[in-house]
Amino acid sequence: MLETLTPIRVRYAETDAMGIVHHAVYPVWMELGRSEFLRAQGQGYSEWEAQGIFMSVGELKVRYRSPARYDELVQVRTWLKEAGRRRVVFGYEVTRDGQRLAEGESIHIVTGPDGRARVLPDALLAQVAGAVRS
Amino acid sequence: MLETLTPIRVRYAETDAMGIVHHAVYPVWMELGRSEFLRAQGQGYSEWEAQGIFMSVGELKVRYRSPARYDELVQVRTWLKEAGRRRVVFGYEVTRDGQRLAEGESIHIVTGPDGRARVLPDALLAQVAGAVRS
Amino acid sequence: MLETLTPIRVRYAETDAMGIVHHAVYPVWMELGRSEFLRAQGQGYSEWEAQGIFMSVGELKVRYRSPARYDELVQVRTWLKEAGRRRVVFGYEVTRDGQRLAEGESIHIVTGPDGRARVLPDALLAQVAGAVRS
Amino acid sequence: MLETLTPIRVRYAETDAMGIVHHAVYPVWMELGRSEFLRAQGQGYSEWEAQGIFMSVGELKVRYRSPARYDELVQVRTWLKEAGRRRVVFGYEVTRDGQRLAEGESIHIVTGPDGRARVLPDALLAQVAGAVRS
Repeated sequence: MLETLTPIRVRYAETDAMGIVHHAVYPVWMELGRSEFLRAQGQGYSEWEAQGIFMSVGELKVRYRSPARYDELVQVRTWLKEAGRRRVVFGYEVTRDGQRLAEGESIHIVTGPDGRARVLPDALLAQVAGAVRS
Repeated sequence: MLETLTPIRVRYAETDAMGIVHHAVYPVWMELGRSEFLRAQGQGYSEWEAQGIFMSVGELKVRYRSPARYDELVQVRTWLKEAGRRRVVFGYEVTRDGQRLAEGESIHIVTGPDGRARVLPDALLAQVAGAVRS
Repeated sequence: MLETLTPIRVRYAETDAMGIVHHAVYPVWMELGRSEFLRAQGQGYSEWEAQGIFMSVGELKVRYRSPARYDELVQVRTWLKEAGRRRVVFGYEVTRDGQRLAEGESIHIVTGPDGRARVLPDALLAQVAGAVRS
Repeated sequence: MLETLTPIRVRYAETDAMGIVHHAVYPVWMELGRSEFLRAQGQGYSEWEAQGIFMSVGELKVRYRSPARYDELVQVRTWLKEAGRRRVVFGYEVTRDGQRLAEGESIHIVTGPDGRARVLPDALLAQVAGAVRS
């Protein structure tokens, strides 16, 4: 399973005075997609944290193409672009009925609970390395 | 100083599709007021936490009277209604140019970092007990 | 269908530095439950708005009993407590695996898009009046 | 005034279970900086909207360098990188006591209230074109 599709019902609280979903909500949706992606590969992110392994966000990019609105059902497609011992990169696409609303990327640094750089343990590296979509 | 006034500039992200501030934002503003109130009394809440003392929210009430909008400058007035070893109650009023927009109350249970009930240490009890507005 | 059950996967962004879901998130979950409840009764809230009918939040109460954490699957149970031409009251319960985490209530005033009081049109009144759980 | 400095007190609600400010909060802070920047140049963004001119977010980039924590006082430095009739680009830096925590960029498309592309009226173009930092 090299990508996951996460359905999200747009919340009223996620809209803004323009009548559309506020742009800062998309990173939250992308994180939800990432969360489902990891769970689908085997160990969910809460299990990573229980082992003292964190994926700190180092960089975030979002490109907005078309707005989403209250009560719509959108989908976040999530996949892995790169996975190394120290750095993991995810790609995302947000769609509604097949139309692309936004796309994004997040670059993560592997750290411990203290925020310091660490290397991924072998089992987690195997989990993500096998899931990179070429 | 038995009450504090916290000025807040309304953020665009805090508005919703009705064009007004979303109702779930008021508890966040009230928390900001509570935070300033504690700092003004002596020890800020981050110092409480550093001592292993948390104020878990047990109950929340908000009454909404008039909406706030993007870019307006609102004020949160915060005061202590009750302060005991196990329970602390705050009162709030949100205003704009003297007009009341909302009022609220939050009831807090004193806990440790594990979420279990604790009693306030003497120094913190003295800080809050002296600040209750009768 | 006199109550709805809305499953929600806890988002990382919904947690706070205490490691639990922040208390201001519960009103957002309750709103999501309300949204599903109205859709299940016939006309979703976006259709209400399309007719110029808004349910402004007049009052909110939440009682917190036990914390939720990242990645947990919680449920919001939503029902109608009262439904009149001018005022509608919802009740909520948030649970996880049958354990009650929080309960709440929201009181809504029927307004137009200008925020002024209105009365519910007959069709919407019939929809909600028939759904009140005694 | 070719840049503005916006002080922000970190809210508890802005932190996450890692004990630091959640990454999706930074775009909200950047927006707050942008808002102050426009106000400082003459016409605030609410006045833009009153004229039917919106700055839809087309692209967002954030690079995270060091975390922020509850109750800290951070600063958002905001400046204009480009300003044309159809596209405006802002740059941001978030600091705490002079230390850089994050930097970002947002690309905006000029639209009407319907989300369709428009061109900036002369007065607003003059306001922003004169404020680009070379």
